[in-house]
Amino acid sequence: MEFDLIRRYFGQPFKALEEGCRQSVVAGIGDDCASLRLSPGHLLYMSTDTLVEGVHFFHDDPPANVGWKSLACNLSDLAACGADPIGFNLSLSLPFVDEGWLAGFSSGLLQAASQFNCPLVGGDTTSAGANAASTLSITIIGQSPETHRGFHRSLALPGDDVWVSGMPGLARLGMLLEYQARGGLASCCTAAELPQLASLLSEMPTALKESALLSFQQPQPQVRLGVALRSLANACIDLSDGLVGDLSHIALASGLSAVLSAAAIRDRWLQFWPSLSSHPEAESLLAALVAASLQGGDDFQLCWTASSHLHDAVLDLSARPWCIGHMVQGKGVWLSEAGQPPQSLVNNSYNHFKGRAS
Amino acid sequence: MEFDLIRRYFGQPFKALEEGCRQSVVAGIGDDCASLRLSPGHLLYMSTDTLVEGVHFFHDDPPANVGWKSLACNLSDLAACGADPIGFNLSLSLPFVDEGWLAGFSSGLLQAASQFNCPLVGGDTTSAGANAASTLSITIIGQSPETHRGFHRSLALPGDDVWVSGMPGLARLGMLLEYQARGGLASCCTAAELPQLASLLSEMPTALKESALLSFQQPQPQVRLGVALRSLANACIDLSDGLVGDLSHIALASGLSAVLSAAAIRDRWLQFWPSLSSHPEAESLLAALVAASLQGGDDFQLCWTASSHLHDAVLDLSARPWCIGHMVQGKGVWLSEAGQPPQSLVNNSYNHFKGRAS
Repeated sequence: MEFDLIRRYFGQPFKALEEGCRQSVVAGIGDDCASLRLSPGHLLYMSTDTLVEGVHFFHDDPPANVGWKSLACNLSDLAACGADPIGFNLSLSLPFVDEGWLAGFSSGLLQAASQFNCPLVGGDTTSAGANAASTLSITIIGQSPETHRGFHRSLALPGDDVWVSGMPGLARLGMLLEYQARGGLASCCTAAELPQLASLLSEMPTALKESALLSFQQPQPQVRLGVALRSLANACIDLSDGLVGDLSHIALASGLSAVLSAAAIRDRWLQFWPSLSSHPEAESLLAALVAASLQGGDDFQLCWTASSHLHDAVLDLSARPWCIGHMVQGKGVWLSEAGQPPQSLVNNSYNHFKGRAS
Repeated sequence: MEFDLIRRYFGQPFKALEEGCRQSVVAGIGDDCASLRLSPGHLLYMSTDTLVEGVHFFHDDPPANVGWKSLACNLSDLAACGADPIGFNLSLSLPFVDEGWLAGFSSGLLQAASQFNCPLVGGDTTSAGANAASTLSITIIGQSPETHRGFHRSLALPGDDVWVSGMPGLARLGMLLEYQARGGLASCCTAAELPQLASLLSEMPTALKESALLSFQQPQPQVRLGVALRSLANACIDLSDGLVGDLSHIALASGLSAVLSAAAIRDRWLQFWPSLSSHPEAESLLAALVAASLQGGDDFQLCWTASSHLHDAVLDLSARPWCIGHMVQGKGVWLSEAGQPPQSLVNNSYNHFKGRAS
């Protein structure tokens, strides 16, 4: 039965992708192991991400979005290493077989698999016990030429520019909009944040709202950008836990400090929301947006450091990254504001055993 | 915190193994992805197995055994493909941080990792929600020379001998002994089986009991045997769901029938329990042992088919395999008994969404 389940809902993609993946997938779903062929002179990259119902997603979330995100967060890990996807294994632990949910979940998952040319090659399906939460674990593999030394977190250098792609914080705004629509805004922010956030959400232009919802529901892992950065970046990380939290990993591993420019973040938001500059509440709204950029998670954008000599080459990338700060001697992550001493940014990003820290 | 958790309990093995694995592990725990180097001219093999508390193990099982088994079942999948281990990712989804359990679990896991030269290279740790069951998912990778065509289930040929290693059913007896010791024998067999099984367990010699308990608590994946079979086997599978269940996968995929010899299974048991032949209940006890061999799961032994021309070469293997039957034209799995028509063996092995079928 479990085998039927996999075939019924997840058998398609492999066939659809078979032609393109024939080079790498020697045997997929159905034997004890999948077998795969790497390109000569390439290293293998491997990453695992697990989503738990009630912690990372909810039963009433659209299952197609859950499917998309479960692969997107793994693709984002490959992107952060500059690796091309090869395929993935899926472990589904379910309390019961909910065919409607599985149909939606698999459609979103396979849409991401198809878009990023990353076939499902194997996995496991188990019962989670009658009253348990569903647990979805994906292990993805990818490859990158051996000549690419990898973007280890410890490789940032003093004087490096700090870059990001996309608009960190947009996914957090999308999450807030979705919870607001369900009447649950108060459950996903602190009481202190609530008035400012409610005001921000009500003022956001429609196009920005749509963009935020899409960033939350169907985040785009930056696989192509990761590959383009192979010759440019020193350290690189994907923004899954929030800018401060993730950048602090790079700072710590490299024995350096990251200084972010508040003006750069505000300028970027103004590109997404041009009319904001003439809004009577501009200052307060921009402060809320900057806070979302610093602490919001699940953006699946990349954050990397690169030598300042490569500034123009990075700026020319088609992903249109923006320079948000730089690395200096010291410790921690700081926010600089003209005419003020830098402000230390405490990492209050996601802790899986505590929920969002307040 | 989750990172600390991984470092504290699982950071050791990689260091201990680093010297031996330096060739293959370029970067392990700590970055977005592990990066690994395959040997030139090798294919990658990948498999995932998930264990759920309350389904595959219980909270009062010794955590070191749970740790050992969680990797052993994955190593067994590699063995069934004739692949050498490279490393594994661990996804731990836990309701809370139970340090005592984690210490035991990691010690068993790392003992298996060390014995089979298969380092932990990455993973994910998530909260399972306060009242949820723990879920442990491991994705293992291995490699095998491209010249090894792989042991796909569909490759059995008519006339092939059917071989097994070890003593299938021994792990099931070990499980029954353990549950009997806890006073729960009736919970893991049918009412019809109970009298015969209780009698079997009480009559088993001490050495056989110890061997059965070890097979259940610390099953030995047959990695070395799998590698030795590269040039000998056609189809191969590991015995995780029971002989009939697993062999029926080979029969179905190859469009053939497997015929097992009841006499061969009895003879094998008599090697493990020589005094049984003079036991007054020998016939009934042997029938219970044959049933355990056919239906018992979690042996992690290998079952394979090989051309009868290779009979002597297989017999010479240091794992001392034994020939249990042969493949013929037809369908399904059958038990042959001298002077009787073959008996069809219904697959009532493990179904994860139903528990043990009765």
